[in-house]
Amino acid sequence: MISDKMKKLVENNSVIREMFEEGKNLRKIYGDENVFDFSLGNPSVETPEKVNEAIKEILEKEDSLKVHGYMSNSGFEDVRTTIATSINKRFETDFSENNIIMTVGAASALNIIFKSILNPDDEVIVFAPYFMEYNNYVAGYDGRVVAISPNTENFEPNLEEFENKITNKTKAVLVNTPNNPTGVIYKEDTIKKMVEIMNRKQEEYSHEIFLISDEPYRELVYDDIEVPYLTKYYNNTFIVYSYSKTLSLPGERIGYVVVPDEMEDSKNIITAITISNRIIGCVNAPSLIQRTVMKCINEKVDISIYKKNRDLLYSKLTELGFECIKPEGAFYLFVKTPVDDKEFCSKAKEFNLLFVPGSSFGCSGYVRIAYCVKTDMIEKSFEAFRKLAEYYKK
Amino acid sequence: MISDKMKKLVENNSVIREMFEEGKNLRKIYGDENVFDFSLGNPSVETPEKVNEAIKEILEKEDSLKVHGYMSNSGFEDVRTTIATSINKRFETDFSENNIIMTVGAASALNIIFKSILNPDDEVIVFAPYFMEYNNYVAGYDGRVVAISPNTENFEPNLEEFENKITNKTKAVLVNTPNNPTGVIYKEDTIKKMVEIMNRKQEEYSHEIFLISDEPYRELVYDDIEVPYLTKYYNNTFIVYSYSKTLSLPGERIGYVVVPDEMEDSKNIITAITISNRIIGCVNAPSLIQRTVMKCINEKVDISIYKKNRDLLYSKLTELGFECIKPEGAFYLFVKTPVDDKEFCSKAKEFNLLFVPGSSFGCSGYVRIAYCVKTDMIEKSFEAFRKLAEYYKK
Repeated sequence: MISDKMKKLVENNSVIREMFEEGKNLRKIYGDENVFDFSLGNPSVETPEKVNEAIKEILEKEDSLKVHGYMSNSGFEDVRTTIATSINKRFETDFSENNIIMTVGAASALNIIFKSILNPDDEVIVFAPYFMEYNNYVAGYDGRVVAISPNTENFEPNLEEFENKITNKTKAVLVNTPNNPTGVIYKEDTIKKMVEIMNRKQEEYSHEIFLISDEPYRELVYDDIEVPYLTKYYNNTFIVYSYSKTLSLPGERIGYVVVPDEMEDSKNIITAITISNRIIGCVNAPSLIQRTVMKCINEKVDISIYKKNRDLLYSKLTELGFECIKPEGAFYLFVKTPVDDKEFCSKAKEFNLLFVPGSSFGCSGYVRIAYCVKTDMIEKSFEAFRKLAEYYKK
Repeated sequence: MISDKMKKLVENNSVIREMFEEGKNLRKIYGDENVFDFSLGNPSVETPEKVNEAIKEILEKEDSLKVHGYMSNSGFEDVRTTIATSINKRFETDFSENNIIMTVGAASALNIIFKSILNPDDEVIVFAPYFMEYNNYVAGYDGRVVAISPNTENFEPNLEEFENKITNKTKAVLVNTPNNPTGVIYKEDTIKKMVEIMNRKQEEYSHEIFLISDEPYRELVYDDIEVPYLTKYYNNTFIVYSYSKTLSLPGERIGYVVVPDEMEDSKNIITAITISNRIIGCVNAPSLIQRTVMKCINEKVDISIYKKNRDLLYSKLTELGFECIKPEGAFYLFVKTPVDDKEFCSKAKEFNLLFVPGSSFGCSGYVRIAYCVKTDMIEKSFEAFRKLAEYYKK
């Protein structure tokens, strides 16, 4: 009696559960400290002290009915003003509270955008490798994901194929930079070429093609590299932001959408997104945490820990002969596998190493190794990586 | 470029905004203290002190990565165990953590149930008057709401019409008791008759008809009356619970779904609901607040304040000649209007009284008067109610 749409998802779920159970089993047999789990994108650096202090301060000083109460479905006005002002200062934009809709994390932000813009069979273009949960979000509103093949040279978008795959049905293009799973940041030059194509295609088809920039990793950037703010390059851009990684608050479900005034029909779109936020059941972003991020607008987690992890693991893996682009952001390495990626993950498990196969991101022949883990686990895992490398050298 | 489904909602939104703006205008002209706003279902009693203390204690004593981190999409296991145990103790049920899925409030709980069970054109039966946002939840998954006419005698379900309107397309029946907007609690006897019909119809059509019990007002009951726990009467029952009113935490978005083992195909349904929680973008219920409700499992707001409000307002309104059933729960009076309910609301506004017309709940000829307001506002409003009554006596 499950809905037809959900049946396949429920069937597939047993595969995921199996993976999870296997990991649990390994831990039981070998002990937690001898299993090297690089499979999860769960922040390993604690939230800044200021965050917990801010929560306590809010509870002590602010009106309890307000702190825990309903507000506009788009969020507290002062929170949205603070965020708009901060974005304006950092990126020389010109947003007001009206351009910001607070959301239950980035996942619901993407859902309410898709609910607001997609008609059945509309297409959303993504660039492989990509977070395949996007497929479920888009399918929820009867849209269709069109994936562009990976450009394994540098994991920037393959723009030639992109241009060819835009059709009259293309409603949106979704980018995620810094990228999960590659850690790559799209260069400004790439963005310029991409939006040049989109502008041309908008004209050709006489309707808007939205750009959606999913940016949970915006603040996790290691080498003084700038991540372009996409509303400055293309009018019809949604920004989707989350504090999950910035402040290590993934369980709290807090993020926002930016809808610029320059977007075509922006007023109605803001209304549609706000209503969607309500009727998909979120109603509003959690109130206490909204007020908390306002008080922590300039905070971020200590990313030097992630940087250290990246450097350690990248050096060791390349030293062992693995091929991998040095990622500039996020907390993942995307490593080429000498054999089929699923086979490689199975073999790695024999050395108590857990990864996610690239095929789970629409890019086989690679694995995602998440380095949002304790640094000493990375150091302890080196011997296992050495054995794995050796196995494939035979 | 808004999706077709959203267009109508965006158009209607201007009507709601107009109402809101009118209220704001009244406040500007007459001052906050001279506008008597009975239109909102926003708790007016503060969260128990224990709640804010619990939050501080969690921040001080528990591991920050856990408190703010991801957990299973169904919620923290210890939170779910605590809730299951508490329900078992209160209602002599036999749930475990596996039967509980923590949600982003009741609204998202209803959404993930509908996503899990509805195929296009499936019907969900509701009893007017009802919270019309249900229409949007059901439409989100291409289902159709079938409303049973109000039984204005006592606002219990009209079971004759109910039986006649169950078809082969009926997938679920949604009840809300204590009820918004009437405050009525369905009697045990009514429930028994209702499920007797449903059992018969399940057999007739050879498929399950789910009962969904939306219970945000369960703890807001005034006269020592018992609210039946519906899983005990019918196997295919979902319970939808929210802490919005129980603990005055509506902005925090915290609630849960109960799926009993006795439900047909319960394992797959639990999986479907858990996946739906993830893919509609909620991912999980907010983590810190999950841990907070666990620590406050036996707390509830001081309902004597609501009771006092109810008694005050009910006495005055009946004294003035208005007709209204004395509600046993929730925080609303549903009052018969001497003229068309929208016209009555417009006239009331001239006396600075704000209500919601019954037609917004599928039951014209009535207004909803929400008494979740400060008691002194109620006392101050009596003169305006007197003038309104007098106007219609002429």
